[in-house]
Amino acid sequence: MENFTFYSPTKFVFGKGMEAEAGKLVKAFGGSKVLIHYGGGSVVRSGLLDRVKASLDSEGIPYVELGGVKPNPRSGLVYEGIELCKKEGVDFVLAVGGGSSIDSSKAIAAGVVYDGDFWDFYCGKPIEKALPVGTVLTIAAAGSEGSGDSVITKEEGMFKRGASGEGIRPKFSILNPELTQTLPPYQTACGITDIMAHLYERYLTNSKDVEVTDRLIEALLITMKNEGPKVIADPNDYQARANIMWAGTMAHTNSCGVGRSQDWNSHNIEHELSALYDCAHGAGLAVTMPAVFKYVMNHDVARFTQVANRVWGVETAEEGIEAFKQFLVSIGMPSTLGELGGKEEDIPTLVKNLCYGDGRDGTISGFVTLNEEDCTKIYQAMI
Amino acid sequence: MENFTFYSPTKFVFGKGMEAEAGKLVKAFGGSKVLIHYGGGSVVRSGLLDRVKASLDSEGIPYVELGGVKPNPRSGLVYEGIELCKKEGVDFVLAVGGGSSIDSSKAIAAGVVYDGDFWDFYCGKPIEKALPVGTVLTIAAAGSEGSGDSVITKEEGMFKRGASGEGIRPKFSILNPELTQTLPPYQTACGITDIMAHLYERYLTNSKDVEVTDRLIEALLITMKNEGPKVIADPNDYQARANIMWAGTMAHTNSCGVGRSQDWNSHNIEHELSALYDCAHGAGLAVTMPAVFKYVMNHDVARFTQVANRVWGVETAEEGIEAFKQFLVSIGMPSTLGELGGKEEDIPTLVKNLCYGDGRDGTISGFVTLNEEDCTKIYQAMI
Repeated sequence: MENFTFYSPTKFVFGKGMEAEAGKLVKAFGGSKVLIHYGGGSVVRSGLLDRVKASLDSEGIPYVELGGVKPNPRSGLVYEGIELCKKEGVDFVLAVGGGSSIDSSKAIAAGVVYDGDFWDFYCGKPIEKALPVGTVLTIAAAGSEGSGDSVITKEEGMFKRGASGEGIRPKFSILNPELTQTLPPYQTACGITDIMAHLYERYLTNSKDVEVTDRLIEALLITMKNEGPKVIADPNDYQARANIMWAGTMAHTNSCGVGRSQDWNSHNIEHELSALYDCAHGAGLAVTMPAVFKYVMNHDVARFTQVANRVWGVETAEEGIEAFKQFLVSIGMPSTLGELGGKEEDIPTLVKNLCYGDGRDGTISGFVTLNEEDCTKIYQAMI
Repeated sequence: MENFTFYSPTKFVFGKGMEAEAGKLVKAFGGSKVLIHYGGGSVVRSGLLDRVKASLDSEGIPYVELGGVKPNPRSGLVYEGIELCKKEGVDFVLAVGGGSSIDSSKAIAAGVVYDGDFWDFYCGKPIEKALPVGTVLTIAAAGSEGSGDSVITKEEGMFKRGASGEGIRPKFSILNPELTQTLPPYQTACGITDIMAHLYERYLTNSKDVEVTDRLIEALLITMKNEGPKVIADPNDYQARANIMWAGTMAHTNSCGVGRSQDWNSHNIEHELSALYDCAHGAGLAVTMPAVFKYVMNHDVARFTQVANRVWGVETAEEGIEAFKQFLVSIGMPSTLGELGGKEEDIPTLVKNLCYGDGRDGTISGFVTLNEEDCTKIYQAMI
């Protein structure tokens, strides 16, 4: 196990009706004027936005609103949010939605207190300072509610890049599994896939003697394998929704990823797909992961065999990858580039953006360092 | 799954040589004058105390010292520590040692800023305010490095009682597995037993639909089952020490115990043993747990069967309890009251202290509510 620091000072408030606590929590963490930042109409139609506003009202906390966050959130709305916060004297950003609303909120929170272009943070500058951020989560997927990470797509060039830093870790996150019950099956399955990707990316390590974190990751993968199909069969299964929601948060606070190197190549390879085709991140990952895993399997076949045995109950590394792929198909996820709207002739563009975009040197590093040829073969295997 | 709040804002700094960070961490969390609180001579002899002092010196942070914490830490030294802190203007308490030093530090930290007798907190008053506490952990066992809990024994009457509150949750904890390598096998095994008890107490729940936390607890139990014998066989096995140390912390931050009722009857029943016989808490738990588990097994035999299958690889609930008992014996733990220095004629005293001590009403509640007769039978089964 390698040396590490683990610090996860987010307060998680979990359960039915907990969005009513939003006002009290904003106040407890020092907010006196709030930007409520959200996506489409679903949080409006469901009445969630009104409940959150009522909670702020009851604490006497004023707010402004900015909706319109899209999946794969864009830099344009971030700039708009930063301006709005500055103009209105906002000192707390409250995300209401899924990973996209949260990531966009984090970018705004960092940008408001920064003297330059917020995109600097998405080119490698760590985020040390930001307005405090809170979240009311509506989708179990990205894990952004418990992480110091954010992913934004820059509209010029459609580059999708991540930023990190303690400054943007949420002060609190409200997790009410009921709010996820209205999600369509496809988005639910995308969330399940994203959570499992966060686990697999941590599992694929070159570090040795990592029994405790291996076992924790496997525990969460087994949970997803068992609970995932339940919510696809019955979207109103509160208990399965609850198990998935906590697993999704635990998958990405890094409590099970410490002391070990991690991969994240599947995420990098997928980011080019959702940037170019604007497909759902989870759907992109469902196509990407089996292709990547088969390509890198022989780098450490014992590791792939271990997860095959312990999680999927099959014998060989290859059977484990196939079982995972079939699981993803069974919950409604795509398995080919074509299903995402991709075409073979796009592959050179995907590879170029991946390996050279935003200052990369022609390779992406992780469990295995992959060059242009490797990445080309991986994209081709998705056809 | 039940509604819950999970908040674990302790910064964990894990790995070789990390005690050198103590000074920087105290400064980062606002300390300007420190009480270093520790136990016996081992932290002196090993040079650890000097390394911690050097780290404070290099940051220019003055300190006073108070050693002498005993296992099952006593109220007398807590009063002494409170007086010392007040006299010296201490504003940060740094525990160097195991759970006893940490628990005693927490009691001092709470007492310094409280106008009454600190023992009030150990009679049920929640601890909201305390001086900030940091820890340099030397034993993987109590989990106190990541919890808002403390257990102290009151010398008059030898009552062993717990207190809780966010105020005493450590701001940081330094976890260097090397520091545990000098522990004798018996103390190492006591720590392993305590960690497994923290997991079993959370596993024994009457809550339903708790797949994710069941799986996480099982993951940590399997880790202890696999890594425990390695450190008994080779005390210098750094990697096994590291796996156990992180498992021990994760077992008690409550990340795997949220959203479910918990037991803690084994801890309550054991506390009377270590209070009366001054035996090691872990050794007391090794004797207590199998007796309690066999007594309450039929309350939910499916739960005991599940852990038997998934952790111990055996078929029935009873076989699972027996496998756990044999595991404890195999790492050098006792299995009878006599081995702890106990005698059958003490049982009425143990039961009286347990069921009526410090204002209890004749029962202890948890997975199963136990009355005097139940507790008598459980102590008798330990003979």
